[in-house]
This record gives sequence, structure tokens and C-alpha cells, in this order.
Amino acid sequence: MICIGTELLIGKIVNTNAQWLAKYITNLGGTVRRVITIGDYPDEIATVLLNSLSRRPTFIITTGGLGPTFDDQTLKSIAHAFRIPLELNKAAHTMVKKKYNTYEKKVMQKIPLTPARIKMAMLPRGAKPLPNPVGTAPGVLLNCDFSRIIILPGVPKEMKAIFKTSIAPLIKNLIGDVYTYERSFKVNRIIESEMAPLIDATMNDNPNVYIKSHPKAPEPLPHIELHLSTTSNTKGQAKKLVEKAIKRIIPLIYNHGGEIEDLKDES
Amino acid sequence: MICIGTELLIGKIVNTNAQWLAKYITNLGGTVRRVITIGDYPDEIATVLLNSLSRRPTFIITTGGLGPTFDDQTLKSIAHAFRIPLELNKAAHTMVKKKYNTYEKKVMQKIPLTPARIKMAMLPRGAKPLPNPVGTAPGVLLNCDFSRIIILPGVPKEMKAIFKTSIAPLIKNLIGDVYTYERSFKVNRIIESEMAPLIDATMNDNPNVYIKSHPKAPEPLPHIELHLSTTSNTKGQAKKLVEKAIKRIIPLIYNHGGEIEDLKDES
Repeated sequence: MICIGTELLIGKIVNTNAQWLAKYITNLGGTVRRVITIGDYPDEIATVLLNSLSRRPTFIITTGGLGPTFDDQTLKSIAHAFRIPLELNKAAHTMVKKKYNTYEKKVMQKIPLTPARIKMAMLPRGAKPLPNPVGTAPGVLLNCDFSRIIILPGVPKEMKAIFKTSIAPLIKNLIGDVYTYERSFKVNRIIESEMAPLIDATMNDNPNVYIKSHPKAPEPLPHIELHLSTTSNTKGQAKKLVEKAIKRIIPLIYNHGGEIEDLKDES
Repeated sequence: MICIGTELLIGKIVNTNAQWLAKYITNLGGTVRRVITIGDYPDEIATVLLNSLSRRPTFIITTGGLGPTFDDQTLKSIAHAFRIPLELNKAAHTMVKKKYNTYEKKVMQKIPLTPARIKMAMLPRGAKPLPNPVGTAPGVLLNCDFSRIIILPGVPKEMKAIFKTSIAPLIKNLIGDVYTYERSFKVNRIIESEMAPLIDATMNDNPNVYIKSHPKAPEPLPHIELHLSTTSNTKGQAKKLVEKAIKRIIPLIYNHGGEIEDLKDES
């Protein structure tokens, strides 16, 4: 995932897009390998894109830099990276025109298709526009040797709508049915450094189950949230794997003087 | 900045550490170039670290993977990347021991220094521990040819405390006095695509001022937040630069039928 936007690098906003996409993709059974946040600089965007492609991911998803303003550099930078021209894409042009027709009716005045607006329909040659159900700039899909590049806007509402409509089905289709099962519970009276070898032992015996400990209160009055999760092709199998790991770790916790709280199903 | 933690890549948590650090560093006059989020995998950590070093940044800051648990791989991975051993650091050992002595007094029982606990004092050779005022695992500073590598824990409270105590003064000392001045206001009745050339014109005449538009409501009833900021060696100069840019853009907005709201000082 490549998140483009200087506002992220100056700390003006928190990157909630990355978290939303990561969670959605994980739930579909996909794996996010890296998230790279960079500013709206064409050279930087091109460099990071080409570097990412060299690792041959199935998908590269970019967010941000897709609107009509001067600092929306993503499409220009991607075209530059591949040495392909930006050109008026007919399908994208129709999408943008339709949006402005709807807006014109709402505000009851003419909205001219200025160059800044037409910019949103200028796509790298060979790219496919993805309908934007809630905004103006279409998303963009660009197929590349080993990877599909998905270019999404940075406005969360628009990014989510395009992803749900056009990309989630693509990923789901590629991965097939995947079920995630996860459970969390709290452990009191064991400090994190004592919990570590118990988790190690459990993960060794349950290699498909991912166990993460989140210390919620520091030593000396420790309170740790344990999070166990796995994915599998059937829901029953995923549940069975997590429950087996829980059955392994609970006696270990009691043996070390720990207390367990809030052991309940999450899904 | 390198943020390490599988919980970030599965979308379990939002990366608020990156935002906090980015904002803090920007306010000190520094520039964050990239934020890379990766999982707790030694090879991945080593690769990303060496890649980042090849761009010769003044600082590389890592967050996460610094505690006693099995998935805290950061120090091991960094030592591996540089082919230097991890060894018991005396100063770090004293810090960790002191923490557990304090804990022992609080819980009124012996807490043995298990290998998992001593792990927090095993640093790459030549590294310097940074006191952790609110937790156990010390931060770590490792000097490298052109860069200083700052290794911080992922727990926000601990990361912030170590950064404020040991790193912020280092950056401030390096950069000198820097003042940021920023102002925001809202523009109604102009859509983002019409705003774009007005921002372009203003930034052309005021190259030191960064202007960002955040659309808060979509067309056809547009509502845009404009954010102007700059840094300079005196507060007066920074203020002057931003005010000059505001004087340039406001008539442009009125000429295009826009309305201005909430024009007030931010700092």
C-alpha cells in the first residue's frame, strides 16, 4: 500500500485509510506486506512505485493525490514512472461529465469542464477508470506485468466506496472463501515478560494461529489483552484451530498465577 | 520512520505513533520523508532498514518490537542487518534491573530477571540505551555512517516519553530555533477544482508557504478547509510569509464568488 499525502508526513492527519484497508483486506484473506507513506512529490511517488513493483506483489494500492488540485500528482507520477502518456480516457471522461451534470442540476447553474476537472479523466494509457459512487475523481486500475495497481483517492469516503465496489470483489474472487476467526481475552497478574514464553510455547504447537499480546497496564499491576486469530477455508476449521490454541495456553496461564477475564467469542 | 508491528498491517490498530512523531518533528523544524510500516519479520526489518540507510537520512526512527515478547524482533534484526552481535549492555542492564527493583517493592515479591527480561538489555554492539521514564524496555540509539538510528518501543506512552526526553533535544540542537506559523480558514461556494488554480497562483508567488486544501463537503455544496503554513528562523518572519500569502489568495476567492469563514490565528 502506498499512501500519498504531505498532510500525513506533517502529522496533520492520522492515516486511517491504511488501517481501514488493512483490516478489510485481512478479512478477505489477503496479506498486507508494507504500507509506505510519502509526500505529493512525483519523483518520490515514481521511485516508491517502481521499488514496490520489484517485489512483485499481487496488488499495489495507492491512496491520495487523485483530485483536481495542484498537489494531486499521483496519475502524472505513475505515467512518468512507466514512461507512458497521460491521455483523455473516454470512459473516465463520461464518468466525470455525468457527475458535473448531476451537480449542475442541483445548483441550477452551469459548471464548465475546466482543465482542472478534465484532469480527473486524464489517465495513464491502458488504465481503466473505477466508478466513484460518492465523489468526482474516478479510481484507476492499471495492469502491470505481475501486479495490478489500484489508484484510489485519499478522501476516506470515496476511497472506501471505490474499494468496496470495484476492488473487494476482485480480491475475493482471487482468494476464494476465507474465514477469519478471532478471540480475545484479558490476563491479569502476569507481566508481559513472563507471558512471552507461554505465547511462544502455544504458537510453536499451533503454527497457524497468530497470538498477539497487548499490554494494557504496565508492570507491577499487569493487565494484558491476548488476541488469537487465524484464517481458514471453512469457518469451522478456523474456529477449531483458535480453540485448540486457547486450550493450550489457558492452563499455562493458570500455572503461572494468572487470572483470565472476558473470554468470549468475537466472531 | 519505520513502524514495526503486524497489528498495524492487519488493521487491528491505527498508526497514531507515526502521526504523533510526524507532528512533533515538523514542529521542531524537521522533515519526515517516508513512513514505512512492516510486520515483525527479521528479514523485512533488516531489508527496509538498509534500504532506508542508502538514502542517507539524518535520522531513522523505528517504533515497535522492543519489548520482551517473542515477536519483538527489532534489535535482533538490526544487529543482523549490520552483522554486529547483540550483547548485554551494562547501562541498559542497570536501567532494566532498577525498574524491576521498583516493581518488586510495589508488589512486595521477588521478580526474577528471566532471559525474556534480560533481552531488553541485549543491545547491538556500540548502541546506547535511552532511559524509558514510563516503562521497562529502554530505547536505543545507534550511530551509523551518515545516520542516527533511534529505536523506540511501540507502546505510545513509552515511545512519546523516550522521544521527548532523549530525541527531541537532539533534533532541536541540530536544527536550531525554528518557528512554524500556520493559519486555516474555510471557503464556501467554491468547488475544489475551481480552487486549485487559485492555490497554484498563490503558491507560485509565495514559494515558502505550503497551502493545502481539504474538501470537507463534496460538490455541489462545497466547503473547503484551506491550511497555510510555513517555518522560518523567527516567528515574525514565519507570520509575515503566511500573511502575505493570505492577502494574495483572499481577493482571488472573492473574485470567484467564494465566501470565507473562521479566519483566525492558529499559533
